[in-house]
Amino acid sequence: MTLPATFIAGDWGTSNLRLALCDEHGRVLEMRKGPGAAESRGQFAETLDGLCSDWRAAHGRLPVLLCGMVGSAFGWREAAYLPCPAQVYELIDALVSPRADVQIVPGMKCTNPLGAPDVMRGEETQLLGAVSGALAPGIEAGKTLVCMPGTHTKWVSMYDGVVQEFLTVPTGELFALLDKHSVIVRDPTTPVVHRAQEFERGLAEARRHPEIPVLHKIFQARTLRLDGQLSPEGAASWISGLLIGTDVAGALQLLETGAPGAAIQVIGTSELVQVYARALAAFGRPAAAVDGGVAAFTGLAYLHRELERRKRL
Amino acid sequence: MTLPATFIAGDWGTSNLRLALCDEHGRVLEMRKGPGAAESRGQFAETLDGLCSDWRAAHGRLPVLLCGMVGSAFGWREAAYLPCPAQVYELIDALVSPRADVQIVPGMKCTNPLGAPDVMRGEETQLLGAVSGALAPGIEAGKTLVCMPGTHTKWVSMYDGVVQEFLTVPTGELFALLDKHSVIVRDPTTPVVHRAQEFERGLAEARRHPEIPVLHKIFQARTLRLDGQLSPEGAASWISGLLIGTDVAGALQLLETGAPGAAIQVIGTSELVQVYARALAAFGRPAAAVDGGVAAFTGLAYLHRELERRKRL
Repeated sequence: MTLPATFIAGDWGTSNLRLALCDEHGRVLEMRKGPGAAESRGQFAETLDGLCSDWRAAHGRLPVLLCGMVGSAFGWREAAYLPCPAQVYELIDALVSPRADVQIVPGMKCTNPLGAPDVMRGEETQLLGAVSGALAPGIEAGKTLVCMPGTHTKWVSMYDGVVQEFLTVPTGELFALLDKHSVIVRDPTTPVVHRAQEFERGLAEARRHPEIPVLHKIFQARTLRLDGQLSPEGAASWISGLLIGTDVAGALQLLETGAPGAAIQVIGTSELVQVYARALAAFGRPAAAVDGGVAAFTGLAYLHRELERRKRL
Repeated sequence: MTLPATFIAGDWGTSNLRLALCDEHGRVLEMRKGPGAAESRGQFAETLDGLCSDWRAAHGRLPVLLCGMVGSAFGWREAAYLPCPAQVYELIDALVSPRADVQIVPGMKCTNPLGAPDVMRGEETQLLGAVSGALAPGIEAGKTLVCMPGTHTKWVSMYDGVVQEFLTVPTGELFALLDKHSVIVRDPTTPVVHRAQEFERGLAEARRHPEIPVLHKIFQARTLRLDGQLSPEGAASWISGLLIGTDVAGALQLLETGAPGAAIQVIGTSELVQVYARALAAFGRPAAAVDGGVAAFTGLAYLHRELERRKRL
C-alpha cells in the first residue's frame, strides 16, 4: 500500500532544514536536508521551491507547514512568540503565512522559573506532536516535566497539554565550545569518542559537592589528564557527564517534576535521549523517550489536518 | 642616576613572552614582547637570543631567569611541578637550566579543595615576588587568600609564605569562548565594551539563587536582549559579572579566607584586579591589589640575587 502524500513538513532551524513529504499523520514518505535559516536569509522561497519541485510535479501544489527559526525576526516571516501559559493546540490560531501555500508555526515565550524571559522556536511543535499524537504516555493529561536536550536544552513544565513555563540551558553549546576551542578538554588531534565510563565519572562529579559551581569543576578535565587519571580520549565524555549532570540537577531543582517516580519525557535525537535518560536515572528519575524528528512532523501534521478540517466547515 | 642592569627576566606564558632587562630588584629598565611558548616550540634559544642580542652587546652575557609555560613538557626544558604544601622560597632549589646562562622556575602542583589534582606555572613566581618583595601587606606572614585572575584564575591559600593548596577556575577562558563564539552574548558586529552597570547586574544574578548552577543563568544574556531588558553592547559585561561573581562565590566557599574582614590579595593586571575587587566587595570582602607583572619580575629578581649570593659563598 502506498501512503498518500498530503503535505510538506519542514523543521527549519538556524543551521539545518529537514524537509519531508508526509502523509496526513506526518509519517515521512521522502526526506531531504537543506540549508538552515541563517544561510537561507533573504531566499527562503527559492530554497524551499528548489528542494521540492519534483514533489509538486508528482503530487500537485501541496501545502507546506514549517516550524523553527524560519519564523524568527531574521526568518522568512516573523511569527510572534505565543505567551505562556498556553495550550499547545492554540498554536494553530497564531500561524503566519508568507505565501498562500506556506504556514509558519510561532514560537513560545514565558517568564522562566528564575524570573527571566525565555523563548523557544521549534520545540513547541514537537510538544504539540507529542500531545496530539499521544507519543509520550501521559503527556496529554496531568502534570509532566519534559526535557528537550540539544544545543539549547529546554526543560518544559506541562499540565493537561498547557505549556506552563520552561527554561533554556545552553548545555550542548557550552560542551561544543569547550570541545572545539579549549585546551581543557583535548588537543586538536585527539579524536572525539563517547566513553560511557568517563561519562559516568563526570556525572558523579556533578552530583558530588552539589553546592559548588560547575565552573570550579571544569578544569579537572585537564588536570586529571595531566595526572594520568583520565585518558586523553576520555576527557570529552567526562565533561559531557559533568555538564549534563549539572543541567539535570539544576532543572530538577527549578521545575515541578510531577508525581515522585513519574517519568520525565525526553524528546530529542536517540543519542541525546540516551545520555539524558542515563543522567536522570543517576538522580533517581525514570525517563520516557520520544524521537524529536517524529514529534515535530506529527505536530505539523496535526496543524495540517486541522487547517483542512476548518476549510471544510 | 642610571640603574645597573643585572639580569634578564622573562615571563614566558603559552601565548606571550614578556622579556625585560632588569636591575637587581626586578625593576624594568627595558621591556620587549615576543612569541609565547606554544609558538616558540623547538626554538626557545633562538627566540630568546634574537630578542636580547643588543642588551648583551651593551651589558655582557647577563643571566636569564624565566618562568611560565617555558618550563612545561612542551617548553624549553621541563621543570617538574613542586608539590604543595611548599614554601615559595623552596622554588630556588628546583630550578632547571637548559643552558649555562638560563634558569627556569618550576610550577607547583597540589590536591585542590575538591580533592582533584591542580597545577600552576608562572603564578608561583608572582607569589614568590609578592612574599619576598613584601608587595602585599601581610602576605608574608599569617593566613592569606590570594586571587590571581586570568584565563585560568588561581585561588591560593597561603600560610607564612607556604602555598597550602590552590584551585584553578577557567573563568577567563569561558568568558572568551562565549564572547567570541556564542550567539548568547553578542552578534559578531557588536563592539566589546565594559559597562559597569551591566557588570553589576550580572554580579547580582550570580548572588541571587546561589544554589542554582550558573549553567542555568547564562542564557539570560540572550533572552534579556531579545526582551529589550539588556542592550546588545551590555551583554558581554553582564556575562562577565555573572561568571566572575560565580567564581568568587565558589572560591569563598572552598578555600580558607583568613580572618573575617581580612583583605583578599588580588594579583593580576589592573583591569582584572579592578573587576575582581568589585566582585569581592559585593561578597563583603575587601581586596588589596598587586600588579602581576611587577610581582613576576620581583620573584625572578629574588631568585637571581639568591643564586649570586650562593655563588659567592
